[in-house]
Amino acid sequence: MIKTLTIDTKKRDEMIDITTYVQDIINEEMKEGIVVVQSLHTTAGITVNENADPDVKTDFLRRLDEVYPWEHTLDLHGEGNTAAHLKTSTVGHSQTIIVTNGGLQLGTWQGIYLCEFDGPRSGRRVSIKTIEAE
Amino acid sequence: MIKTLTIDTKKRDEMIDITTYVQDIINEEMKEGIVVVQSLHTTAGITVNENADPDVKTDFLRRLDEVYPWEHTLDLHGEGNTAAHLKTSTVGHSQTIIVTNGGLQLGTWQGIYLCEFDGPRSGRRVSIKTIEAE
Amino acid sequence: MIKTLTIDTKKRDEMIDITTYVQDIINEEMKEGIVVVQSLHTTAGITVNENADPDVKTDFLRRLDEVYPWEHTLDLHGEGNTAAHLKTSTVGHSQTIIVTNGGLQLGTWQGIYLCEFDGPRSGRRVSIKTIEAE
Repeated sequence: MIKTLTIDTKKRDEMIDITTYVQDIINEEMKEGIVVVQSLHTTAGITVNENADPDVKTDFLRRLDEVYPWEHTLDLHGEGNTAAHLKTSTVGHSQTIIVTNGGLQLGTWQGIYLCEFDGPRSGRRVSIKTIEAE
Repeated sequence: MIKTLTIDTKKRDEMIDITTYVQDIINEEMKEGIVVVQSLHTTAGITVNENADPDVKTDFLRRLDEVYPWEHTLDLHGEGNTAAHLKTSTVGHSQTIIVTNGGLQLGTWQGIYLCEFDGPRSGRRVSIKTIEAE
Repeated sequence: MIKTLTIDTKKRDEMIDITTYVQDIINEEMKEGIVVVQSLHTTAGITVNENADPDVKTDFLRRLDEVYPWEHTLDLHGEGNTAAHLKTSTVGHSQTIIVTNGGLQLGTWQGIYLCEFDGPRSGRRVSIKTIEAE
């Protein structure tokens, strides 16, 4: 059994904290093991990063945009969102997090984020699978 | 038990769709769980990205080459393939994908790719491990 | 049950080979399955890359620093370590490696690294979880 979150995004580039949703599923399903959190899109990824200062998100998205600029005269892909594909593979389409004592094994400052790189979009989907293991 | 694909690559930079091979192994082995797809190399990685417009692959590889250019006067590594090591860690040496109802839980546009960054090479190896979990 | 390594780092940017520690845990716990190796920090990640020529590490860290320079006039984050957050999400906060016959399924040149991007720090923590599966 898997769970799938559906999320509407509001900007072209956006990091949305989904840690609580993942923890809620763990509360229902497991105590020890791992959880896989996976984007079902090629222009939106998943990462684990800082959950405290919101400036990190702003800096993070702007820096990625500098490395992979949206406009690029050499891009062939007709949709014009090549940069979003690069950003998604850079952060990853999924993340795996250890679970112990019924909780996500995250450091103090770690949160789980859906990273929108080609929004706004309605109905972004994130699938979550728990694997129990003592 | 693990399965290992052996793949010959034809260019220095190349993305090879291996989704069908991974699905074939799932067909033999499992219904629910996760699958880990892992490159056994440090200059070839695995990513999940667009399976439709081939221009995405062209743009993707050219953009990565702009970020991590092949030639770099400061590189020390004698083999001259430092850029390939960077690209591999950027996309990742492995990817984990959720499996449900006997199928890969991929979005419409998602495919699994071996990313060659220092080809052409004969005998690139990709190991695949399925983990069953209800 | 999970194991957590505690590691002191010595430089701002540093790659520390932890392959032996991960293998030791596998020796105690499992024969077949996967292992998840996870950093508990947002400015230190985990990657799998070359274990032979130390010049690869030097080039790797210098190249990442060129892509994500430490100083950036537009960064808002008050701690000044935005670049370290970017580098961590680029290499990944965790890696999953296949295990078979009691050994890490790594290629000849692959090692597992803790990547420090905002050191030196005492007490960097890496959690390791084994998942058995035939």
